[in-house]
Amino acid sequence: MTGEPIHDLAHIGHAELLTPRPEESLGFFERVLGMEVEAREGRSVFLRGWGDYQRYSLKLTEAERAGLGHMALRAWSQDALERRVAAIEASGLGHGWIDGDLGHGPAYRFSDPDGHALEVYFEVERYSPPEPLRPALKNQPQRYTGRGAAVKRLDHVNLLAADVRANRTFAEDVLGYRLYERVELDDGSEAGAWLSRSIAAHELIYVRDARRSRGRLHHLAFWVDTREEVLRAADLFLENGVHIEAAPSKHTVAQGFFLYGIEPGGNRIEVTNGGYLVYDPDHPPTVWSEAERARGQAWGVRTVESFHTYGTPSDEPVPGR
Amino acid sequence: MTGEPIHDLAHIGHAELLTPRPEESLGFFERVLGMEVEAREGRSVFLRGWGDYQRYSLKLTEAERAGLGHMALRAWSQDALERRVAAIEASGLGHGWIDGDLGHGPAYRFSDPDGHALEVYFEVERYSPPEPLRPALKNQPQRYTGRGAAVKRLDHVNLLAADVRANRTFAEDVLGYRLYERVELDDGSEAGAWLSRSIAAHELIYVRDARRSRGRLHHLAFWVDTREEVLRAADLFLENGVHIEAAPSKHTVAQGFFLYGIEPGGNRIEVTNGGYLVYDPDHPPTVWSEAERARGQAWGVRTVESFHTYGTPSDEPVPGR
Amino acid sequence: MTGEPIHDLAHIGHAELLTPRPEESLGFFERVLGMEVEAREGRSVFLRGWGDYQRYSLKLTEAERAGLGHMALRAWSQDALERRVAAIEASGLGHGWIDGDLGHGPAYRFSDPDGHALEVYFEVERYSPPEPLRPALKNQPQRYTGRGAAVKRLDHVNLLAADVRANRTFAEDVLGYRLYERVELDDGSEAGAWLSRSIAAHELIYVRDARRSRGRLHHLAFWVDTREEVLRAADLFLENGVHIEAAPSKHTVAQGFFLYGIEPGGNRIEVTNGGYLVYDPDHPPTVWSEAERARGQAWGVRTVESFHTYGTPSDEPVPGR
Amino acid sequence: MTGEPIHDLAHIGHAELLTPRPEESLGFFERVLGMEVEAREGRSVFLRGWGDYQRYSLKLTEAERAGLGHMALRAWSQDALERRVAAIEASGLGHGWIDGDLGHGPAYRFSDPDGHALEVYFEVERYSPPEPLRPALKNQPQRYTGRGAAVKRLDHVNLLAADVRANRTFAEDVLGYRLYERVELDDGSEAGAWLSRSIAAHELIYVRDARRSRGRLHHLAFWVDTREEVLRAADLFLENGVHIEAAPSKHTVAQGFFLYGIEPGGNRIEVTNGGYLVYDPDHPPTVWSEAERARGQAWGVRTVESFHTYGTPSDEPVPGR
Repeated sequence: MTGEPIHDLAHIGHAELLTPRPEESLGFFERVLGMEVEAREGRSVFLRGWGDYQRYSLKLTEAERAGLGHMALRAWSQDALERRVAAIEASGLGHGWIDGDLGHGPAYRFSDPDGHALEVYFEVERYSPPEPLRPALKNQPQRYTGRGAAVKRLDHVNLLAADVRANRTFAEDVLGYRLYERVELDDGSEAGAWLSRSIAAHELIYVRDARRSRGRLHHLAFWVDTREEVLRAADLFLENGVHIEAAPSKHTVAQGFFLYGIEPGGNRIEVTNGGYLVYDPDHPPTVWSEAERARGQAWGVRTVESFHTYGTPSDEPVPGR
Repeated sequence: MTGEPIHDLAHIGHAELLTPRPEESLGFFERVLGMEVEAREGRSVFLRGWGDYQRYSLKLTEAERAGLGHMALRAWSQDALERRVAAIEASGLGHGWIDGDLGHGPAYRFSDPDGHALEVYFEVERYSPPEPLRPALKNQPQRYTGRGAAVKRLDHVNLLAADVRANRTFAEDVLGYRLYERVELDDGSEAGAWLSRSIAAHELIYVRDARRSRGRLHHLAFWVDTREEVLRAADLFLENGVHIEAAPSKHTVAQGFFLYGIEPGGNRIEVTNGGYLVYDPDHPPTVWSEAERARGQAWGVRTVESFHTYGTPSDEPVPGR
Repeated sequence: MTGEPIHDLAHIGHAELLTPRPEESLGFFERVLGMEVEAREGRSVFLRGWGDYQRYSLKLTEAERAGLGHMALRAWSQDALERRVAAIEASGLGHGWIDGDLGHGPAYRFSDPDGHALEVYFEVERYSPPEPLRPALKNQPQRYTGRGAAVKRLDHVNLLAADVRANRTFAEDVLGYRLYERVELDDGSEAGAWLSRSIAAHELIYVRDARRSRGRLHHLAFWVDTREEVLRAADLFLENGVHIEAAPSKHTVAQGFFLYGIEPGGNRIEVTNGGYLVYDPDHPPTVWSEAERARGQAWGVRTVESFHTYGTPSDEPVPGR
Repeated sequence: MTGEPIHDLAHIGHAELLTPRPEESLGFFERVLGMEVEAREGRSVFLRGWGDYQRYSLKLTEAERAGLGHMALRAWSQDALERRVAAIEASGLGHGWIDGDLGHGPAYRFSDPDGHALEVYFEVERYSPPEPLRPALKNQPQRYTGRGAAVKRLDHVNLLAADVRANRTFAEDVLGYRLYERVELDDGSEAGAWLSRSIAAHELIYVRDARRSRGRLHHLAFWVDTREEVLRAADLFLENGVHIEAAPSKHTVAQGFFLYGIEPGGNRIEVTNGGYLVYDPDHPPTVWSEAERARGQAWGVRTVESFHTYGTPSDEPVPGR
């Protein structure tokens, strides 16, 4: 990164997930992940973790095919929003303003180079819990109910991309994301990039789409506060018949502690904890070679083939079915 | 202990808890501790943890006053049961046989020297889960639902006694309990005794009743598999308005990791993990002096006064009210 | 099990491990597993975990080939010892008395049907820590130093056997072990048996030797008190170049939480936590079918081929080399 | 906060701790906290956690009295550094440039209103591990040795101040810190303020000095990645004779999981984990009233009197001596 860092975007505010099995998907997010239904509108249900300060971080929408509806980024301020919109428009990937959606104000729609639908917005409604969900500690947005995996919030989004480098540099140059780690193959192409708008080791990930499709989702990741809760989530996945694609273990890249499952709609969902915080303001990105990546995850685990090929939407069989 | 060890009793099969607020107490055990209602009969509800192999380990009974209804010990075999009954009868504390209760066969009723109502039995019904509670792994009696603190089973019972030594030696000599730790005050009297019928560091505890009452209960303890779950239970107590009498920390004696709360009926309940296993068949009991006990818990925590004086039933105010 | 249970043996007192690389193996047990050297004698080093009440639970002996030297079982009493010796002699597998070894008294040597060298003994020296290893809490045999994985004690031993059933029934009928789980293949043969002398879910395991060799070791397992410590041990294995054969995850059988690595001498070592306690005195063993075993570990993990074929001694390459 | 946020400072780069018992203090930080000695110079030893990207985060300096030597803040860039220096100079609290110290370039010295010695700098040497400390994963600055509590890095600094509000507004307006939580007493005065330059819930804390002294330190806090490691650190404190002033529990404010001990020099040290991340760019600070603070920590724990009165330097007895 050269020049002054761009601090205009704060974080991923929410993601919209598409599902062809809306009732079953809702059951997964509500009972297994333990999220709360905050609102319903049309074919969408808005869900929240107990740590979300906004009304929701997941919009679950019925659709013919699984995949990402859109992902929305919150700006630091109105001025910051306008600066980013100007930069996006200059990139030629802007689509224009919309009035907003449930819980937030005007948003500007655009695409990343791979074609994923993105938005930026600033104005937001903060969550106000109804009595049964009022927390005991007022520095917490909502009661911790402990239901299911009891995820705290949406943590990061992993997008597949035909050209990782193009999307990574767009995220850096236009959106102001910081690059913390990336994988460079022997042919010089980029297989993955881990980006963040904060000290968290990753908030936005681009991974190469093995099928060279466009606009696909690898996974949404939801945060829990301990590794023990990730292990507990694995037991809950097992007991509830949720296909575990990758059992809890530790990633090499970003060192996140993971559990991957497939929700009933066919989308891959991660329950995550761990990783590291990047306090270095000019952190030199870690670059992994093809040989280094071939060694598997941190403790030697080899993730299954589908983990490297499957994304949504897909014409292939859903893993575990 | 001299002579051959007595292996006739296996474990505490269940405890009956009395509550003057049956609906609220049931809410606590079902929603906050996460137990399942296995049966109802008369003024009693029978509850189980997900790891109980019998139908229940807690019988919750409506009564005018809080306290222990009775505690039932399961024998290793029918012969073992008869041997223990003979020993109890010889002690003069036997009351006679009853036909059994829900889930188990004939039981012999007796008292310990302090007057607590005890039973021994052998025949038992093993738990057979209904479809919604069938576990994914068949070496587990019931599905892990993860609801509330999700306690696994009744772990140990702590009884108050006017004369600890008399009850401790009764437990050793007549019931075959092994003594692992005890507290001896400067005046030679005994302030507490930690006994077990297995390698677990404590299953039955006698602690001196500061009020010199008889037949009172200090607490029932329920097991969770990790210390993290004890911490999680503390958050759930906090969110559900359960009075925390002692926040999670580590005991000096037996090294158990604890959380103590008061259930709505006024009884003290522990969520527990940790401790150590005693593999030594002729383990020399650890004896703590008055001065050693004065140092507090393992990490220096001083438990509140009520922890050392309150038991059920009680004429004193319930802690936290 | 029919008839009265046999309570004569208490637990596995220690195991002797053979290593062709004694210095490196010692480095592993002392620095990576964090055990203490209690004594040295001839070509052996005696090591202990911080929770061992005896002087040691591991005897590490230089030898041409890796494998189990012997495994020693402690009896409940002198009478119990003599009863078991009589039973062993009656089985035709007894070898005779030896004077004892460092830290324990007279021992009777024998073989299991597969030819593993076993011993039973009763008299023992309890550990008395030198000043730098004196614990803060006197109900603990030794200071917790926290060095390396800081294993607490030897937990269980897994032996390979050409004929699992023959060894399992010997352990039950002659030694008094209780069977908690076993695997029965479609052809009626037995692929594994999990046995215990206590409420712990396994202390002695027999697993079929894929090579049909005799007297081989699958692994020794050392206990840590939390799953978090197993995860931490995996980081320490990684940092210290110890080959991780199976990253931390949860077993289906016995539900133990595991980490398997290969120590420098070529023997497989487990760091373990979890499992369940069997309070039921007439616990019906869980029997797993071939199809059920084919589903992998609890969260779907498939252990690598070497886990199912490699044992010590071996003519095959050591995993990870 | 009004106007555009100030993003010029990145984090607390290091703190200098003064100790009248340098050898014993060094023993504490090296063996009990598990930090590495990176360099020595004059009367100072420079120590690092395994996650520090700079050469050190703690400078331990022999002095007549305990306390904070200075605290140094790293800027985002050279331009950002100059902007902050200009703001500091305008505040009248600037002292002037120094050439730098081991591991970093030119620094500007100044005071906060309470008189604590502070510095800002940008240029830094990144840590390059010697062979024995090279990590297995290259996205980690140093090998995880697991020695002692194995703290990862300096996490936050808690300063006592006669006038919390004056210091808090200085940190916000001049340094660009964000205020996440504060305590306001019934008389309108401020008893504490929790500030951060990142999404972490606190990096810089001001708490009212009960003695109305100036320039004193409440504590330095070092991070570990799990609550289990905080519990483990408590065992290590116990085994190593480190006075535990507050056993592990959960704070109400900022929800950090804590362990407080007193290092041999007399300074209070925290081992910390937990808390929450603040993704909201215009997070409304939580304001706690006097009555709310009187309820104790999250699970009801009452911290001891010394926790609210003792700071360094002090003329009072060191807690635990």
